[in-house]
Amino acid sequence: MKRSFASDNNAGIHPDILAAISSVNAGHVVGYGDDRYTQSAIEKFREHFGGAADAHFVFGGTAANVLGLQAVTRPYNSILCTDVAHINTDECGAPEKFTGCKLLTVSGSEGKISIAEVQPLLHGLGDQHHVQPKVISISQSTELGTVYTPAEIKALADFAHRNQMLLHMDGARISNAAASLRVPLKAITADVGVNVLSFGGTKNGMMYGEAVIFFDRALSQDLKYIRKQGMQLASKMRFISAQFSALLSNDLWYRNAEHANQMAKRLAQEVRRLRNVRITQKVEANGVFAIVPRETLPALLKEYFFYVWNEASSEVRWMTSFDTTEEDIESFVGLLRHAVG
Amino acid sequence: MKRSFASDNNAGIHPDILAAISSVNAGHVVGYGDDRYTQSAIEKFREHFGGAADAHFVFGGTAANVLGLQAVTRPYNSILCTDVAHINTDECGAPEKFTGCKLLTVSGSEGKISIAEVQPLLHGLGDQHHVQPKVISISQSTELGTVYTPAEIKALADFAHRNQMLLHMDGARISNAAASLRVPLKAITADVGVNVLSFGGTKNGMMYGEAVIFFDRALSQDLKYIRKQGMQLASKMRFISAQFSALLSNDLWYRNAEHANQMAKRLAQEVRRLRNVRITQKVEANGVFAIVPRETLPALLKEYFFYVWNEASSEVRWMTSFDTTEEDIESFVGLLRHAVG
Amino acid sequence: MKRSFASDNNAGIHPDILAAISSVNAGHVVGYGDDRYTQSAIEKFREHFGGAADAHFVFGGTAANVLGLQAVTRPYNSILCTDVAHINTDECGAPEKFTGCKLLTVSGSEGKISIAEVQPLLHGLGDQHHVQPKVISISQSTELGTVYTPAEIKALADFAHRNQMLLHMDGARISNAAASLRVPLKAITADVGVNVLSFGGTKNGMMYGEAVIFFDRALSQDLKYIRKQGMQLASKMRFISAQFSALLSNDLWYRNAEHANQMAKRLAQEVRRLRNVRITQKVEANGVFAIVPRETLPALLKEYFFYVWNEASSEVRWMTSFDTTEEDIESFVGLLRHAVG
Amino acid sequence: MKRSFASDNNAGIHPDILAAISSVNAGHVVGYGDDRYTQSAIEKFREHFGGAADAHFVFGGTAANVLGLQAVTRPYNSILCTDVAHINTDECGAPEKFTGCKLLTVSGSEGKISIAEVQPLLHGLGDQHHVQPKVISISQSTELGTVYTPAEIKALADFAHRNQMLLHMDGARISNAAASLRVPLKAITADVGVNVLSFGGTKNGMMYGEAVIFFDRALSQDLKYIRKQGMQLASKMRFISAQFSALLSNDLWYRNAEHANQMAKRLAQEVRRLRNVRITQKVEANGVFAIVPRETLPALLKEYFFYVWNEASSEVRWMTSFDTTEEDIESFVGLLRHAVG
Repeated sequence: MKRSFASDNNAGIHPDILAAISSVNAGHVVGYGDDRYTQSAIEKFREHFGGAADAHFVFGGTAANVLGLQAVTRPYNSILCTDVAHINTDECGAPEKFTGCKLLTVSGSEGKISIAEVQPLLHGLGDQHHVQPKVISISQSTELGTVYTPAEIKALADFAHRNQMLLHMDGARISNAAASLRVPLKAITADVGVNVLSFGGTKNGMMYGEAVIFFDRALSQDLKYIRKQGMQLASKMRFISAQFSALLSNDLWYRNAEHANQMAKRLAQEVRRLRNVRITQKVEANGVFAIVPRETLPALLKEYFFYVWNEASSEVRWMTSFDTTEEDIESFVGLLRHAVG
Repeated sequence: MKRSFASDNNAGIHPDILAAISSVNAGHVVGYGDDRYTQSAIEKFREHFGGAADAHFVFGGTAANVLGLQAVTRPYNSILCTDVAHINTDECGAPEKFTGCKLLTVSGSEGKISIAEVQPLLHGLGDQHHVQPKVISISQSTELGTVYTPAEIKALADFAHRNQMLLHMDGARISNAAASLRVPLKAITADVGVNVLSFGGTKNGMMYGEAVIFFDRALSQDLKYIRKQGMQLASKMRFISAQFSALLSNDLWYRNAEHANQMAKRLAQEVRRLRNVRITQKVEANGVFAIVPRETLPALLKEYFFYVWNEASSEVRWMTSFDTTEEDIESFVGLLRHAVG
Repeated sequence: MKRSFASDNNAGIHPDILAAISSVNAGHVVGYGDDRYTQSAIEKFREHFGGAADAHFVFGGTAANVLGLQAVTRPYNSILCTDVAHINTDECGAPEKFTGCKLLTVSGSEGKISIAEVQPLLHGLGDQHHVQPKVISISQSTELGTVYTPAEIKALADFAHRNQMLLHMDGARISNAAASLRVPLKAITADVGVNVLSFGGTKNGMMYGEAVIFFDRALSQDLKYIRKQGMQLASKMRFISAQFSALLSNDLWYRNAEHANQMAKRLAQEVRRLRNVRITQKVEANGVFAIVPRETLPALLKEYFFYVWNEASSEVRWMTSFDTTEEDIESFVGLLRHAVG
Repeated sequence: MKRSFASDNNAGIHPDILAAISSVNAGHVVGYGDDRYTQSAIEKFREHFGGAADAHFVFGGTAANVLGLQAVTRPYNSILCTDVAHINTDECGAPEKFTGCKLLTVSGSEGKISIAEVQPLLHGLGDQHHVQPKVISISQSTELGTVYTPAEIKALADFAHRNQMLLHMDGARISNAAASLRVPLKAITADVGVNVLSFGGTKNGMMYGEAVIFFDRALSQDLKYIRKQGMQLASKMRFISAQFSALLSNDLWYRNAEHANQMAKRLAQEVRRLRNVRITQKVEANGVFAIVPRETLPALLKEYFFYVWNEASSEVRWMTSFDTTEEDIESFVGLLRHAVG
């Protein structure tokens, strides 16, 4: 089926990942993570994130976010994020349902939270009538295809810690962010004060599987119960583990992400040449946001599936993935050029 | 790694299943189940369970149970099951946490619930102080390796319906039950009044993936929201779907289950010849329960991993799987014979 | 202790209410609401709200809101309200914790929700990734001391119903609203499409006790279980019931509310004459919002307790109650006049 | 209305309690517990329970239990109690709904839990599949009208603490227990290792109001948020506080409870003389359990309301209260004598 620009999760499995799955399929191993493949994958995470990193594997990205947040909150807490945060808009209320917490949102800028916006939410501290802020949650890369710099993350982490809060990172696309910044994964997480991280695998070439990573064991002590009660404990865990081991070896995580990023850059370059199409967000990771003439949408969507981000302004989102090719882009831009005249 | 008798989920992926995954890995498809592979798998379920069957795929078995129960309960309801039910003992309280319901248990016999035992739990109906019974949940095959007959299921379903309740079936091993009874899957579900079914894939040769099946659309209307909020919506759904399509084609579900059952029968036959080992449950599916001399356990467990079901009585559980071989059994029984003298 | 302008719940019990409690204190009656005093109070509600009204008594106002919302939602629903709604800001996340739902907010105008603002929140209908809007919740009178007209309520109810939603009213101060509009309670609830109402007693002279009222029995069928599970079933219910019977007899509800409203009007009149104090909201019920010179606050708060509504703008809230006297106002305005020069 | 033997909560308000309410009804005080009456009541609790006692007032008894348990658990924990525990049978699943925890029950003896019964429930410790035991909850006096001795409580507390668990006491009728044992309240709580206590007011002459008491501030730090989120924060808190102050002054708590106990003893004495009626439980507090001829029930229930505890065995429960008179007993026993011949 034709590669679209709908989402990086419309892509399939990277061949190396599928091969890794196949390679661990011999014989029996103990279920639920008590196997050597899982131990080995956890070690891989420590190589990338430091020895203090405690990684727990789950099935999906919503779960990674929700379980990580559950581990560090009580139901009377609030979680601060942007309006466009995945946890706020795309998880069907799972964070509220499972943690009991309220999400407090700021409008953000370029998909990023600023301290100035968060500060006013820190009112009512100690007041029993009000939910008590406990976590700032950011997405890296953001839902708008932008990337926090290490300094920006550190500033938010420091602010959170000064206010007895924690910093959570939804890293469904953290590899794209690290590749974009040309820094190791550690540089935008453990090194700059992130406390809990959802590390995304599926959007970067895996079949399924995400990791919840804590950088302080005091925070993750009861994650194993939360994961099981959260319906996220895989019985045949080895097959998630093998995927992560492959992704974190031979720079596969980086190569996949970097390729997707480059394809987004290229798409943006081509699009910028078109009249009547305006790119609306910085292209720093693997997404391109643009306003296209509304009347062209039917023709475009007939050939390629992608999301209309904002019906009112006719803004669309195009995502690239590890398997997007230059031909895909040429072909799509050709259609676009034709459509917008 | 040596095949053990710990659990059917210690086995890997059946080759046909892995091939099916590989075969749908080309190109992009829309995420979250809106793809033709998923449509096709849902059709497969209708072939086996009748046209009214509404199948929804989830990651794991605990989730299949919990989401199915959530769809048909309100938090003030109770769910009736046996003490040894997986939902009661092995899901770390996920049913209570997610549905808010109370589980009321009966001790059961041979792992099965009887109407006589359930009847006394139906007190306090209409009394606001008491949780209101809404679901009887049975496991097929049971956690003790026994199998409900169609007539037994129908009696429980009729009883449930007469009392404004529903019948839920945890079918993590439903294929083993159907194979044991030599009946189609429909004969122990749709045909005898089951309302909600967890259909197990993982324990019968899949890599991951279970299905929640409803036999009345009125009950499943909001399952899609419950699934997403329950953190069980796979983005790359096609890979679960392809597995189910393979499992439900060419009798693979039956062949895998039947093989596992035969291996359990054979294991039981061999074990019955041993002195000092006593089989404690009918061997109707793919599990063998036996009391072995306590002093032999260390030597056995050094070579083979399996679960001690009851420490007090030295009762153990041996599970067979689609890939258990006659050699595995000979080898294990040899060790056992040697150990028990 | 001096009567303040902090909140109508800083007042005590109206003498008629206390007398009513005393009058039902003889002998034993069956607990949990199965008594004639409760039956009688429910009848009183029907007199005021129509024969279809189904009233359930609870301890407090937060509970009235939360249980009413719980009865008509499922956890994947959203509840639409203003930023300043009590359910959003002053209930410590109880709605999210108990219902599992997400609250979606609009900024509102004069404390009121408008259809224009709500409309954009009705996106993602039928999309499993998004919470599904189910309830519009308004407060009457509003948290800003304003009052919805019957026409405004009807328009919101019609809009809600057209979109398969319900209209919930937080009527913690509904009596003040009805008195302000000089209409019966029915005219701003049952007659204009409200589906679920929290009827406030405590802020209008009761000791404790609120009522959840439904105007359609189909919605309240399981409220009795929700109430008990929600920890709101009073064992000695007769003492809530007697209070409500007194409040709803001899126009006590109206007289208390009307008096409080008049006192607010008078306070506003006096305040308008002062330089350097600016009233910021229409004074339609029993609250007065004003911006006062920041430097006067310490002196004022030393003598009278009241809430600073907005620290940034030095906006304060003054509430009057059934027992506020003209002398209280004169005395307070005297201090205020002195303070602002 | 005739005083029945249905429940101590069918009684009304003790005159001293009603007078105390009336005495604090002058003027305004700050809401939500930040008032001197509440401070004073909290001090009263410290007089009785020791300086470390941290008391929080709530509306009802179910809430006292649930919020106390919520404060010391996480949702993957289990709470161990008897089958007949109020939290297990009479709270419509509120503990499960609000805490997310599973209740594990033992059958008990005389309404009491024994270490021998609890011990087997402490399996699966550290195993992610199983809920993790965290609290033993006992009722004092028990639901069967019996009383734990201080030594029995201490043994359970020590056992709990040795196993990293806590001891919770549902003290809805703790005053009856202390009066029965002729010991101060402290002797069966703080002095013997109870960690969390629900202190009952309503069943001992109050109008409404219970207290959650912790004996270690580390456990109660976030109770204020849990209480508000649990919909149990009274706005006009002074009226609960004044009741508690009265109850805990002049030995009113003791006199009320002692009287009820004496009435139960007397009722039991009289009943023991009757043929065909058999008392089934020790009469140590204010309840009498007896098996009466089934055919006499209609005549008895026509005159007096009480609960049939066990339909199958025709066992009934008769409760006495602070206002039961000797005449009430004579009259009831007269009827009973007549009925049983």
